[in-house]
Amino acid sequence: MSLAVEITDTFEELRDTVARLHSELTRYELVIWTAGNVSARVPGHDLMVIKPSGVSYDELSADTMVVTDLYGEVVHGDLAPSSDTAAHAYVYRHMPEVGGVVHTHSTYATAWAAVGEPIPCVLTMIADEFGGEIPVGPFAMIGDDSIGRGIVETLRSSRSPAVLMRNHGPFTVGRTARDAVKAAVMVEDVAKTVHIASALGRPEPLSDQDVDRLYARYQNVYGQQGEK
Amino acid sequence: MSLAVEITDTFEELRDTVARLHSELTRYELVIWTAGNVSARVPGHDLMVIKPSGVSYDELSADTMVVTDLYGEVVHGDLAPSSDTAAHAYVYRHMPEVGGVVHTHSTYATAWAAVGEPIPCVLTMIADEFGGEIPVGPFAMIGDDSIGRGIVETLRSSRSPAVLMRNHGPFTVGRTARDAVKAAVMVEDVAKTVHIASALGRPEPLSDQDVDRLYARYQNVYGQQGEK
Amino acid sequence: MSLAVEITDTFEELRDTVARLHSELTRYELVIWTAGNVSARVPGHDLMVIKPSGVSYDELSADTMVVTDLYGEVVHGDLAPSSDTAAHAYVYRHMPEVGGVVHTHSTYATAWAAVGEPIPCVLTMIADEFGGEIPVGPFAMIGDDSIGRGIVETLRSSRSPAVLMRNHGPFTVGRTARDAVKAAVMVEDVAKTVHIASALGRPEPLSDQDVDRLYARYQNVYGQQGEK
Amino acid sequence: MSLAVEITDTFEELRDTVARLHSELTRYELVIWTAGNVSARVPGHDLMVIKPSGVSYDELSADTMVVTDLYGEVVHGDLAPSSDTAAHAYVYRHMPEVGGVVHTHSTYATAWAAVGEPIPCVLTMIADEFGGEIPVGPFAMIGDDSIGRGIVETLRSSRSPAVLMRNHGPFTVGRTARDAVKAAVMVEDVAKTVHIASALGRPEPLSDQDVDRLYARYQNVYGQQGEK
Repeated sequence: MSLAVEITDTFEELRDTVARLHSELTRYELVIWTAGNVSARVPGHDLMVIKPSGVSYDELSADTMVVTDLYGEVVHGDLAPSSDTAAHAYVYRHMPEVGGVVHTHSTYATAWAAVGEPIPCVLTMIADEFGGEIPVGPFAMIGDDSIGRGIVETLRSSRSPAVLMRNHGPFTVGRTARDAVKAAVMVEDVAKTVHIASALGRPEPLSDQDVDRLYARYQNVYGQQGEK
Repeated sequence: MSLAVEITDTFEELRDTVARLHSELTRYELVIWTAGNVSARVPGHDLMVIKPSGVSYDELSADTMVVTDLYGEVVHGDLAPSSDTAAHAYVYRHMPEVGGVVHTHSTYATAWAAVGEPIPCVLTMIADEFGGEIPVGPFAMIGDDSIGRGIVETLRSSRSPAVLMRNHGPFTVGRTARDAVKAAVMVEDVAKTVHIASALGRPEPLSDQDVDRLYARYQNVYGQQGEK
Repeated sequence: MSLAVEITDTFEELRDTVARLHSELTRYELVIWTAGNVSARVPGHDLMVIKPSGVSYDELSADTMVVTDLYGEVVHGDLAPSSDTAAHAYVYRHMPEVGGVVHTHSTYATAWAAVGEPIPCVLTMIADEFGGEIPVGPFAMIGDDSIGRGIVETLRSSRSPAVLMRNHGPFTVGRTARDAVKAAVMVEDVAKTVHIASALGRPEPLSDQDVDRLYARYQNVYGQQGEK
Repeated sequence: MSLAVEITDTFEELRDTVARLHSELTRYELVIWTAGNVSARVPGHDLMVIKPSGVSYDELSADTMVVTDLYGEVVHGDLAPSSDTAAHAYVYRHMPEVGGVVHTHSTYATAWAAVGEPIPCVLTMIADEFGGEIPVGPFAMIGDDSIGRGIVETLRSSRSPAVLMRNHGPFTVGRTARDAVKAAVMVEDVAKTVHIASALGRPEPLSDQDVDRLYARYQNVYGQQGEK
């Protein structure tokens, strides 16, 4: 495949980061076989780094990562990019604030997606990270812009960095690829907890006011200053 | 046990492959103790390579694998073959396109088998890999051709590479042993997701048309060209 | 503590075996912290080897194992034996065919014990290993012979090597400690599968005739000849 | 940050202990990402050692631990302390017998917290460790003394070392940080078991008399003498 861009140190580092972030998907058991992917926008270029299609997580390295433009055309790399590339690319084209996208079929988040129910905001952790309920996106076929459009339209009407695509699975976004991975880990965690809570009884949603206060604090105060 | 076949490099490699594939069963927690097995057809011979009976996964190696003919008679190896050998052999005799067979008692797939319910096609991942609902096979006693016949008859009326044998557990097939292992991993994954979705509400099945389009794309486009 | 018995090679090996078998309890996540124990009868002596009380699994070794008589009195070892020693000892005194005993609080088996429901024989794996439903034993206080008596009385009226002690958890027995550990692994596995099946629908029990045939075959044919 | 206290060997050891204890939270999968924390009171000082905020578990070491006074003001360490520091500090100020505090969002305990239901005492393990049902604390906003006050008021009217803070998650206490970690491990374990039991049927609570006897025995007899 033609080398349409010069691979600088920054590229090299980003390809390594994206390759390594996939190990968080396996660590938290969000993916099986090859069914999930991480991408990152290349800062300052209309390009992204994404997982190759159908390659197992054990075999990923910086070298196997694929670089595409924001229409999914490969500009660097020997392998075909993830079959979800069009969806990632659409998100980067339409959400300039997004620097990373993650897609998994993680069990509990996908179960909520299968029944088309948003995850209600019944936990402080949901208010902290998602700022309200976690929304459901439309059913969309793979292969054109439908999935990307469904993700963007749903996320625009929410503070949540996660959307549950109906009958399919979660997509998450973040300022960086690492933030998007964190959201993928947390959406599965709260999807499981609220599923179990729903089997035990009726969890009471937090008030809008409490959600707003928790969200504001977590986004501004949590973690080490200047690194969030 | 008499050495009825010459063990060539190809054999050696296949025995190693089959031994190693068992580690995917433990990695994804599809098996406990010694309760699951992988086999592969030996290309160009009426022979198969299969796990020995009652040997733990930690102790498997190319050397411990058993080679049998397609009636389950041992032609190479010091150990007795899996007690499921007759079922594997029947599948190879009657499905020439099959190069690998896997049997597990993985928890969620076995639960669907226990209630005799097919797993409905409510997820894009099910359409992709299984091409429709995952069917239930008959209850059959171990020890003769009953299980093999039940597997073959059920798979013939379906595009699914997995069958849920009633009150028993899943059997999966593939073009290669690796493909059959992938199907075993995925049947458990979707069995779990759909179980949880069913507890949350009523997941809506995909339309036949959407299933057909997803299945065709996945079988033809996914992964790296020429290696699927 | 006084050295009341001479520690021969056989002892040494058995203490090592019992120490190592605890790693199967952690591998299959049957225990947390220090809450589960394995013991073995010392062949040819009225003695048993058992886990010390409150010692974490990472710290177990042949040296930390405790040897007691069949009334739970320590005859070798520097540590206090498991607080379940009286129950293990009672089983060895009253079931001469038993060479190993295991106790855990594994999640799903304990859940069945909490509701006092036997696990119905709805899977071929249950017929194979347990020969019928897995019975519930009485609620019994720790500290005297009550638990041991409850175990023995329940197991005597069943072919099952496992009993679910009410509001407490499973105890399993075997010809060897390894067999008892296998039963502990399998009772948790089938407890989980049948729980999930029960949430999906009504799993149909196998007929008594099928159970008898499966049990006979598994006990006599499965595994490598002469080592079962 | 100013070095307001001299770091002696005892401090060093305690910081190491607290750092290492976090690996029990990941081992038992009680936490994801950075969402849980352990602290320990510094014996003989009005100080505590606690996890830094937003730092991942792989990167924790004695050096990264933060020392604060019992109002949460940092006296040693380069990083900001956990955002839950105020709650830990409040507990140490008001419960002089407590030497360690743990907070997680572990799945099953948090699910009970989400529905505001105490975990009933239906297992001998619950009687042993918690001395009765595991109580629910009030919903409280993070950032001031509300959470700490809710924890202390709830624990004072119970023998349980664990409280399920409503819509939030479990906090546990202990004589040492290790004891508090043990309680965090056990509350999740019994939360899961009782959830599953409740799906199977109606688990019967133990009588108050049996609970008292089990609790007394476990607190006084279990483990190795003098080290409990």
